[in-house]
Amino acid sequence: MPNAERIRNDLRDLLDPARVVDDPAVLARARRDTWVISVWRSMQSAPIASPACVVRPTTTAEVSAVLRYATRERVAVVPFGAGSGVCGAILAPERSIVLDLGAMRAMKRLDETALLATVEPGLLGSEFERMLNDAGYSMGHFPQSIALSSVGGWVATRAAGQFSTKYGNIEDMLVAFEAVLPDGEVVRTRAVPRAAAGQDLRHLFLGAEGTTGILTELTYEIHPMAPSTEKVAIAFPSMGAGLEALRRVMRAGWRPAVLRLYDEIEAGRSFAGAADDGESLLLVLTEGPPELTRVEIDGTIRIAGEAGGRAIGCAPVDNWLHHRNAVPGFESFLNQGMVVDTIEVASTWDRIDRLYAGVLAGMRAVPGILVASGHSSHSYATGTNIYFTFAGRPERPEDLEDLYFRIWNAAMETTLAAGGTISHHHGIGRIRREWLPRELGSAYPLLPKIRQVLDPLGIMNPGALLPEPAGRRP
Amino acid sequence: MPNAERIRNDLRDLLDPARVVDDPAVLARARRDTWVISVWRSMQSAPIASPACVVRPTTTAEVSAVLRYATRERVAVVPFGAGSGVCGAILAPERSIVLDLGAMRAMKRLDETALLATVEPGLLGSEFERMLNDAGYSMGHFPQSIALSSVGGWVATRAAGQFSTKYGNIEDMLVAFEAVLPDGEVVRTRAVPRAAAGQDLRHLFLGAEGTTGILTELTYEIHPMAPSTEKVAIAFPSMGAGLEALRRVMRAGWRPAVLRLYDEIEAGRSFAGAADDGESLLLVLTEGPPELTRVEIDGTIRIAGEAGGRAIGCAPVDNWLHHRNAVPGFESFLNQGMVVDTIEVASTWDRIDRLYAGVLAGMRAVPGILVASGHSSHSYATGTNIYFTFAGRPERPEDLEDLYFRIWNAAMETTLAAGGTISHHHGIGRIRREWLPRELGSAYPLLPKIRQVLDPLGIMNPGALLPEPAGRRP
Repeated sequence: MPNAERIRNDLRDLLDPARVVDDPAVLARARRDTWVISVWRSMQSAPIASPACVVRPTTTAEVSAVLRYATRERVAVVPFGAGSGVCGAILAPERSIVLDLGAMRAMKRLDETALLATVEPGLLGSEFERMLNDAGYSMGHFPQSIALSSVGGWVATRAAGQFSTKYGNIEDMLVAFEAVLPDGEVVRTRAVPRAAAGQDLRHLFLGAEGTTGILTELTYEIHPMAPSTEKVAIAFPSMGAGLEALRRVMRAGWRPAVLRLYDEIEAGRSFAGAADDGESLLLVLTEGPPELTRVEIDGTIRIAGEAGGRAIGCAPVDNWLHHRNAVPGFESFLNQGMVVDTIEVASTWDRIDRLYAGVLAGMRAVPGILVASGHSSHSYATGTNIYFTFAGRPERPEDLEDLYFRIWNAAMETTLAAGGTISHHHGIGRIRREWLPRELGSAYPLLPKIRQVLDPLGIMNPGALLPEPAGRRP
Repeated sequence: MPNAERIRNDLRDLLDPARVVDDPAVLARARRDTWVISVWRSMQSAPIASPACVVRPTTTAEVSAVLRYATRERVAVVPFGAGSGVCGAILAPERSIVLDLGAMRAMKRLDETALLATVEPGLLGSEFERMLNDAGYSMGHFPQSIALSSVGGWVATRAAGQFSTKYGNIEDMLVAFEAVLPDGEVVRTRAVPRAAAGQDLRHLFLGAEGTTGILTELTYEIHPMAPSTEKVAIAFPSMGAGLEALRRVMRAGWRPAVLRLYDEIEAGRSFAGAADDGESLLLVLTEGPPELTRVEIDGTIRIAGEAGGRAIGCAPVDNWLHHRNAVPGFESFLNQGMVVDTIEVASTWDRIDRLYAGVLAGMRAVPGILVASGHSSHSYATGTNIYFTFAGRPERPEDLEDLYFRIWNAAMETTLAAGGTISHHHGIGRIRREWLPRELGSAYPLLPKIRQVLDPLGIMNPGALLPEPAGRRP
């Protein structure tokens, strides 16, 4: 394998040399995502691996040239969208190439008849949504990270947005793509509404976390801005009553864009005074034609009432809409000696009470935990997710990582014991990697098989999703 | 490769000998699907390839034993569900093993809380739907073939049902599966509502047409029987006006379960007297809570009216509901010297007028064609499908195949020229195989790669979807 100096020189022969950066500040920013452990480690003075360089291609041909080079020289390539991932999927090894897609951020086409928008992968979600809004459209995809995450990263991680109950998740929105395979080959699919023409090739890249190639263009389904919105907040005597209401709303066939149910801790913390002490709080928002939003909000309120809920007006929903994308930085907590993180899991309705109670009990049993709470933010006919938040404080700063991994271990083990999935929408990265074989069971070997056929040399984002290929760095 | 006699003997050592059948009538029935060319050839006296036997396993372990044997001996395995496919995906080569799943047809679990039903692959669609109805549920999946097709075949072909606008297509309904890989390994996934845990492994099998393994168990999402239904038929002055109405209904965010638009030929043939001569006819059916179905039917009628449609009552919808699954047999036409077939394609809205007109003009230019017509049966925010039907009569019976392939050639070429997909929901089989490389373009090589990694010996249903592996029979 060539040394870092030669990699930089080789790449500067291939691309505009200004696109090959080894400025330490740029390397520091692009060598990792926002996994709290990476944040913590970068705050320490301990030595960290240093990639050879960051390259910022502007075209598919340049991406292809970089990957062809990386294949020939067997150099690891780490794709970097916007770095907002929280699972450690991006953690560039020594002498790797960080392929930063931030210079590819154009909207290339907007088709108002076919309701399709084609974008480059480095575009930020909020920039994309603003461009669409200016033309009278919306993507309907609102991850909390929308101002921090890229439209290509959404596919890599299988993202979900806050309005998913109506508009679906990222796999329901991606229509076509262009990707560069690890050997530099460029593949493109066509935009068709639906086909039965062999396997759906989007799924080689959706959720692959960069291990099968680099997405260079994405065609997404878009929607005209909804003409009408209705909102209501509903208080429940318990989380269990609220979950039962969610189940019944979905079962009845209603699909409000937003259904967010906070447990009593989160209701008290984020919506103080809105509900009574000890109550859970459900936020409902419906979007669409006015005739639809009206009957949908009424239907939801009626079903929630039968499950023990009481409507308390729309102020908490407005409050949430206003603050919903405020993502607190991990650093401020770390500076206070605390570690904070979120863990989103999901299960079918028959297991959800056990999942919710089991994960909380498991995390709370870890010495050093300060608080653990959860909310449901994505519901389906078959089940829902729970998005847990925890905070812990070790007795000594040097025990912070140990405390963190103990809490994660408790959450993952209790999730699997309850029959849930270990990740609803953040992905695997490095933090969940050791539980993935149990998540997928006998089907797990299919994942490395897919990777093997597309990336036989194991150069693409090694260490994310799957263990490092044998022979690579530990 | 062992001869047929040895294959039968070997399999009778592995399984209950009564499960290994070489009765000529059974072989004749299970060696092919319902592709009209296979029907035609079986009506001729010309010699046809004969599989070694039909095996009818009753358990996953038996399926695994058969595949392990087939891998060891490099014998081709042809999965047979119910034989209702119309594209030639099932056409057993000489000395192959036909793996008939018709003895595996149990409903194994019905979870009324998680809204999941787990079934074996050979269960017929109509049997499954009746079991669900008896418990107060429905799958919401109604292919015209429901009484002839199997719940496993739906996944293999990427099926779509008549109520797809509300309930989605088969990929939206399959939640979990068990499959036996070509080497005999059994893989199972768990039922979770949604996950971000690597690639979605269902898509290795959805649309694979049996080339990646045998599905032995399927867990489907189900729905409580809808409490309310509303129906209306709407006449349009032209197919173009009707397509524009469909586009606007979808764009507005309504999702009636059924939206079927027949051109003037099909409206006149199937709904004589309902609309005026030359008019196209749209059937609308909404399902769900009564408050929803009422506003949805009203919203649809209003938008259709703005696009030039006039509501003409619900009698045509009732008529369709009564006769919708009557599938005419190909034999009666063939006996009259005619060949009849259907070709379902799709495109985005910006291309749909060109697709509809282009395919009809292309087919009508073929000497010997008698009639060609089309209807739209599956709409999306981004586009719709057109389901074409044609009839042709060659001057001499020996030219029937030539006429048939000329018409198909015209339909496929005009579809690709218009930017459409060559198959909306019937699949590729053998009839569409030569156009698949142009359907998928630069992404096409990914398909044989997926196959290669799961079935390196090429024993699974060779010749369906992809060309016969080199070294196999032509």
